[in-house]
Amino acid sequence: MSGNSIGKIFVLSSFGESHGPAIGGVVDGCPPGLELAEDDLQRDLERRRPGRTRHTSQRREPDRVRILSGVFEGKTTGAPIGLLIDNVDQKTRDYDKIKHIFRPGHADYTYQQKYGIRDYRGGGRSSARETAIRVAAGAIARKYLAGRLGIEIHGYLAQLGPLPLKAVDLSTADDNAFFCADPSRVAELEAFMDELRKSGDSVGARVNVEARGVPPGLGEPVFSRLDADIAGAMMGINAAKGVEIGAGFGSVEQKGSEHRDPMRPDGFVRNNAGGILGGISSGQDILVSVAFKPTSSLRLPVETIDVHGKAVEAVTKGRHDPCVGLRAVPIAEAMLALVLMDHYLRHRAQNQDVACETLPIPGSLAET
Amino acid sequence: MSGNSIGKIFVLSSFGESHGPAIGGVVDGCPPGLELAEDDLQRDLERRRPGRTRHTSQRREPDRVRILSGVFEGKTTGAPIGLLIDNVDQKTRDYDKIKHIFRPGHADYTYQQKYGIRDYRGGGRSSARETAIRVAAGAIARKYLAGRLGIEIHGYLAQLGPLPLKAVDLSTADDNAFFCADPSRVAELEAFMDELRKSGDSVGARVNVEARGVPPGLGEPVFSRLDADIAGAMMGINAAKGVEIGAGFGSVEQKGSEHRDPMRPDGFVRNNAGGILGGISSGQDILVSVAFKPTSSLRLPVETIDVHGKAVEAVTKGRHDPCVGLRAVPIAEAMLALVLMDHYLRHRAQNQDVACETLPIPGSLAET
Amino acid sequence: MSGNSIGKIFVLSSFGESHGPAIGGVVDGCPPGLELAEDDLQRDLERRRPGRTRHTSQRREPDRVRILSGVFEGKTTGAPIGLLIDNVDQKTRDYDKIKHIFRPGHADYTYQQKYGIRDYRGGGRSSARETAIRVAAGAIARKYLAGRLGIEIHGYLAQLGPLPLKAVDLSTADDNAFFCADPSRVAELEAFMDELRKSGDSVGARVNVEARGVPPGLGEPVFSRLDADIAGAMMGINAAKGVEIGAGFGSVEQKGSEHRDPMRPDGFVRNNAGGILGGISSGQDILVSVAFKPTSSLRLPVETIDVHGKAVEAVTKGRHDPCVGLRAVPIAEAMLALVLMDHYLRHRAQNQDVACETLPIPGSLAET
Amino acid sequence: MSGNSIGKIFVLSSFGESHGPAIGGVVDGCPPGLELAEDDLQRDLERRRPGRTRHTSQRREPDRVRILSGVFEGKTTGAPIGLLIDNVDQKTRDYDKIKHIFRPGHADYTYQQKYGIRDYRGGGRSSARETAIRVAAGAIARKYLAGRLGIEIHGYLAQLGPLPLKAVDLSTADDNAFFCADPSRVAELEAFMDELRKSGDSVGARVNVEARGVPPGLGEPVFSRLDADIAGAMMGINAAKGVEIGAGFGSVEQKGSEHRDPMRPDGFVRNNAGGILGGISSGQDILVSVAFKPTSSLRLPVETIDVHGKAVEAVTKGRHDPCVGLRAVPIAEAMLALVLMDHYLRHRAQNQDVACETLPIPGSLAET
Repeated sequence: MSGNSIGKIFVLSSFGESHGPAIGGVVDGCPPGLELAEDDLQRDLERRRPGRTRHTSQRREPDRVRILSGVFEGKTTGAPIGLLIDNVDQKTRDYDKIKHIFRPGHADYTYQQKYGIRDYRGGGRSSARETAIRVAAGAIARKYLAGRLGIEIHGYLAQLGPLPLKAVDLSTADDNAFFCADPSRVAELEAFMDELRKSGDSVGARVNVEARGVPPGLGEPVFSRLDADIAGAMMGINAAKGVEIGAGFGSVEQKGSEHRDPMRPDGFVRNNAGGILGGISSGQDILVSVAFKPTSSLRLPVETIDVHGKAVEAVTKGRHDPCVGLRAVPIAEAMLALVLMDHYLRHRAQNQDVACETLPIPGSLAET
Repeated sequence: MSGNSIGKIFVLSSFGESHGPAIGGVVDGCPPGLELAEDDLQRDLERRRPGRTRHTSQRREPDRVRILSGVFEGKTTGAPIGLLIDNVDQKTRDYDKIKHIFRPGHADYTYQQKYGIRDYRGGGRSSARETAIRVAAGAIARKYLAGRLGIEIHGYLAQLGPLPLKAVDLSTADDNAFFCADPSRVAELEAFMDELRKSGDSVGARVNVEARGVPPGLGEPVFSRLDADIAGAMMGINAAKGVEIGAGFGSVEQKGSEHRDPMRPDGFVRNNAGGILGGISSGQDILVSVAFKPTSSLRLPVETIDVHGKAVEAVTKGRHDPCVGLRAVPIAEAMLALVLMDHYLRHRAQNQDVACETLPIPGSLAET
Repeated sequence: MSGNSIGKIFVLSSFGESHGPAIGGVVDGCPPGLELAEDDLQRDLERRRPGRTRHTSQRREPDRVRILSGVFEGKTTGAPIGLLIDNVDQKTRDYDKIKHIFRPGHADYTYQQKYGIRDYRGGGRSSARETAIRVAAGAIARKYLAGRLGIEIHGYLAQLGPLPLKAVDLSTADDNAFFCADPSRVAELEAFMDELRKSGDSVGARVNVEARGVPPGLGEPVFSRLDADIAGAMMGINAAKGVEIGAGFGSVEQKGSEHRDPMRPDGFVRNNAGGILGGISSGQDILVSVAFKPTSSLRLPVETIDVHGKAVEAVTKGRHDPCVGLRAVPIAEAMLALVLMDHYLRHRAQNQDVACETLPIPGSLAET
Repeated sequence: MSGNSIGKIFVLSSFGESHGPAIGGVVDGCPPGLELAEDDLQRDLERRRPGRTRHTSQRREPDRVRILSGVFEGKTTGAPIGLLIDNVDQKTRDYDKIKHIFRPGHADYTYQQKYGIRDYRGGGRSSARETAIRVAAGAIARKYLAGRLGIEIHGYLAQLGPLPLKAVDLSTADDNAFFCADPSRVAELEAFMDELRKSGDSVGARVNVEARGVPPGLGEPVFSRLDADIAGAMMGINAAKGVEIGAGFGSVEQKGSEHRDPMRPDGFVRNNAGGILGGISSGQDILVSVAFKPTSSLRLPVETIDVHGKAVEAVTKGRHDPCVGLRAVPIAEAMLALVLMDHYLRHRAQNQDVACETLPIPGSLAET
C-alpha cells in the first residue's frame, strides 16, 4: 500500500489532480449487502462543495460522483467500489504565472524536490480538491456505521481565527456556511469573513468532530491505537497542523485526579479521555479537535524564490478559500468515518469470538 | 500487518507485557552494512529506564537489550533484527487487588471489552514498559539517520504541568532527570515534583521533539504525509492526547500573511510549517509537540466499578511515574526516528531516479 | 490493503465488473519522470483484447484505456495514475438464464457463499475482463523496467492441450493468435482449435514467461521471496492451477548433482533455478511456467444445482474462449512485470547503499 | 510489512539465523481466548526437528519453543505472541572453508549481491532452520482452525525422487520418517535413502497437503485469492520450485468437460478444482502439491567461483538433508494453516453480516 491508500480492511485508494480530467478512488473491502446509491454520497459532497457561498472558493464544481462498480441492484457486492468525479471548472489559463515560482506555505517547493516534476495547475495533487473523494468514500462508511451500529458523526467549527465557538446545537451546524453550531453567532462570522476578504488576508480555524454510539473495543494497541489512527487521518487533511483527543493539550496542566474519568455503574462521569483509553474505544463519545492553518494563497505579496533560486515576489490571484477550515468539517467527518469503519472490521476479524457477556457501562454520563 | 507493527519498509513489530518474562521486537528492512552493537541501543534505553531518579517509577529494570539476529561481525546484514529485553523486577504479588476492578484512566476496561480477557499484572500489554522496545528500535534508526544523512533528533520537556519551559540549550536536556533544556529551571522542577509526589497527585506534560538535517522530499501525499505519520506515531505513545506540527494550534489564530514562511535564496525566513509542506519535508527543522496526560494511577481514591459492574473505590499503591511525560522524551525521539527512517527508505524506493540538480534553499534561516 | 491491490511500493488497486459501465485501477508509487502515453498501455491491451480472432471470445471491446491522473506534460509525476477502460459491448440480455444457477467450474457458487450476493452478469468481478487493467498497469511497469534496467519480458504458449510447443523464436510469438513461438506449428494449432470449437469442448494450456536482464538482488527473504511473489501473482490469474520456477516439478526427479547450476567466472552453466536462488534474483533469466485449466463454460450440458439447491442442467451459450490460456500470455507477462517492478523499488529502498563493487558473474551461459 | 512477515490480520514476523543465538517470531492478531501452551507448538516442531532419523540432517536441536507473551493463565489475550527457540547445536568451526566461495544452488551469491554482506555460517538467514518458527506459528493457527472450525490439515510425501507414493492412509504418515502415507512402501524408501546417502547425492520430492472442513468463502479476489496466497506461501518455503492446486498441471491436457466438477444437491462430484473456485474456497477439500528441489549441498564436487570471481571447486562436508522434501511436510502444513487462518479472519472482517441461510452443498462427494 503506497501513500494514496488509507485503511487496512476498508481501504480507500485515491487519485486525481485539481486540473486533470477527473478525480477518483477505489473503496475496497466494503461489506456486501449495504444499500448504496450515488445520492448517499452526494449529500456529503454537497456540504464540501466549493462555490456554494461567498465565503469559500468560487470554483464551481457540480461534484457529481459516479459509482462505477461494486454495487449491483442497489446493494454493495463486496467487490471494490470505483468512484469518479469529473473536473468541470478548471481554469488553467493563468497558471503560467506561478509555473516558475514556489509559493510560500504551499507544496510547490516540496513536490519539486521530491519528484523533480510537478503539475503546477491549481496545486495538482496537493490541491484540496482531492478531498472530495475522501468525502465520497467516507459517506459509504458513515452509511454502514449509522445503519448497522447506530454511530453518528458530527463536526462543527469550534474556532474561526480569534473567535471561539460553542456547540450549542449540533443539528444547526449544517444550516450555515460556517458549520457553526451556535446560530446566534452566524451573523458575527459573516461580518468577520467579509472584513477578512476585503483585507486580502486569511485565518486559521479549529474544527471539532464527535462520534456517538461507538461500541467499546475499537483500536489495536500498540501502534494502530484508535487515537493514533485518528490523529494520522486528521493530520493528513490539507492544512491541518494539530490534533487533540479529548482534553488534548489541556491535559498538560491537569492534575491526574482531575483528568481521569471516574466510572459508575451507569456510566463514565466525564470524558477527558475523549472516548479512548489505551488506544481502544470505551463506548463514550469520541472527541477530536483539529487545527487548520490559514490559507497561504493571498493577494498580499510575499517574498519567495523561483525555480532557479532567484528572489521574486508572489501574489496569488486565483479562486481561494480565505479560511480552508470552513470546508474542512465534512472532510474531518469523513476521515473519522473511514478510521472507525476500518477499525470496526479489524475488530471483528480478531475478536468476533469474544462474548462480552455484560457491558457494565451503558455509555456516558458526560455532557459533551 | 497488525496493530503491533509500525512502518512499511523499516518495520518494527513488538511484543511483550509488563510482567511476562520479556519484551521484544523485530526490526525488519534495516539497510545492510550499518555498524551496530547492543551499546548503540543501550544509550537511549538508559535515558528511558525507570528507577533512575526519585521522580520516576521505582521499578528497577536493568533494561539490557540483546540483539538476537540480523547483525554479523558488527554490521547489519539486511536480515531482521531480533531484540529482547528480559523483565527482571516484576512484582506481581499485589495485583490481586486490581484484578477485579477497572482503574479509571487506564486501559483495564477497554482491554476487557475488546478481548474478553486481560493480563492485569502491571497493565499487561498496555504498560508503558512496552515502549522500551520502541526506544531500542528507534536507536537503530537514529544511528542510520545520523551517520548517513546527518539527521539529529532532540527532544526536551517543554512544559511540566503549569510550568512552561524554553529550550535554552538543547545539549543540556540529558543532564537532568526532566529532560529540561533550561538548566536554570531544574531546581524549580525538582521542588515542584517533590511537592507533587507528596500530594499523591500527578500532572501532565508537553514534550517537544525536533529533527535537524532532514533532507527535503520525505513524506508520501496524500495519506502517508510525513506529518500524518508523525502525528499517528506520537499519538500512539501511551498517555499522548495531542500532537502539533510547527505552529500547531497557534495557527488557528494566525493570519495567512503571518503564518506562511517566506522563502529567500538563502533559506526560509521562519518555520511556522514545522518543516513540512504538503505532507513533504522541506529541509527545515521538523518541529513536533506532544501533550501527555497526567498519570491516572494515584493513591488518591477514585470512584469506579468492578468487573461485575458494582461501584467500588480504586486506590493505586504500586510504583508509578507522577509525570509520565518525563520519560516520554526518548520515546518521542524514537518514534520520530522510526517515521523518518521509514520515509527515507520509501522516498528512495520511488524517487531515487530524481536528480534534484540544485536545491535552491540550503536550509533554514529560522531560529527554532 | 485489501484483496484488490497488489504490490507494496508499486501498487495496483483494481475495480470493475464485466458488465458494469467500466473497469479501472489506480497505480500508486510509480517513479516520476517516466515518459508515458496512453499508447504505451494500448499496445499490450491489444494483445489481450477479445474478438481479434475466431479462436477467442467474440465479445468486441475496443479496450481504450484513459489515463486520468499522474501524468503531466507526457511524464509521470509520482502521483497515483488513474486508469479507466469503458465497457462497451456488454450483452446483458441473456443472463437471466444463469441468474439462478451455479455454473460448475465457475465462481458463481463461491461468490454467493462469500458475499451473499453476486453480480451474475458475465461473471461480474470474477470475469477475466478484470485482467485488462492488470495488462494496462503492467505496461507501465514494463516500460520502466525496459527503459531503465533493460529488462525484457516475453511470454509464449508452451502447450495447447496435448500439444507441447517449443520457443523456437520468441520474437514470432506475437505474429499469431496463439502466442506460439514456433511458426512451423501455427497451422496445426489452428486446425486443433477449429476442431475443438466444433466439438463444443475446451482445453487447458501452459504458458511460459521469461524475464531477461533482471539484475541480481530482487526479492525479500523469507516470505516475500521473488519466487513466492511471482507464484502468488501467477496463481492469481483467472484459471491458473499451477506455477513452476525453473525446473519446477521436474526437479522432483532430479539428483542434486544434476539440478544445481554450476558457476564459472563467465556465468552460470545452466538455469535449473529459473534465475532465483534463496528467493533472490541471480541475474540469470527468470523462468516461469503456468498451467491454465480449460474453460468451464461449454455448450455441452453439465449437472449442477440452482440457488435453492435443486438439481438442474447447465448449458452455456455466451461468447467464451475455448482456451483461456491463449489470451493469458500478455496477462502473465503483466503480472511478472508488476512483481519485478515492485521488488526493484523495494530493493533499492533497503539496499541502495550497497556498493556491489564487482559482480563476478556477468550473466548466464545457459541457453534458455 | 517487510519481507519477513506473512499475513494481514494473523501476521507472523520472523527473525533469526542458523548460527545466531536463537530464532524467533511474533504472531500478531491471534484471536483471544484460545487455550494455548508451549506443548501445542512443540508437537509440530518435533515432526520437523532435525536429527530424529538417519535420513535427515544430523544437527541435534532440541527445538524447545518458549512463549514469551500474549498468553495469560493458559489463554491467548489478543496481544502479540512472542516465540523464541534457542539455537543449541551450532557448529560454526568449519565454515571458514565456504566463507569465500559461492556454493551453487545456494543463496550465497544472491545474498552477497543483494546485501553486500552475508552471514555464511550454516546459510545464515537462508537456512531452513528459519522454518521452525513457521511451524510453531502454524501450530497456533492449526489449533484455532481445528477447535473452532473443525479444519484438519494433513500433509504427506507424494513422491521421493523417481518413486511416486499414494496416500493410502493419511493417519500413518506420522509413523515413519518419510511422512509416507502408504505403510507398505516404507521399507523401499529406507533402502532408497540409504543408497542415496552412500552415493553422496540427493533427490527432490513432491509433498501434498490437504485441508478438510474448510468453510466456503475464504479468499479475496482478485489478487489475494486463496489459491494465490497458498501458492505464494508454498513457493516461499526453502527449495520449493512448483505449486499446484487441484488438478494442477494435469489440467493443461484436460478437456473442459472433464475438468469442471459437476455439482449435485448432496455435493461436488469430483475435485479437480482443489477446493477453490474463483479464488474462494468452495467447501471441498483444499488440495495442494509442492515440488522441492534436491539439496545442493553434496560431498560431490562442483564447479563454482569464489568471492573474487575466481574458479574454484566446492565440496560440502557439513550435516545436510539428502532430501529436504522429507522435512518439508510439517512446514507445508504450517504454511497452509497460516494462510487459512489469515483468510478466515479477513473473511469475517468483511463478510460477518452475510447470512448464508442455506449452504446448498454440504461438502464433497469426491474421494481425494
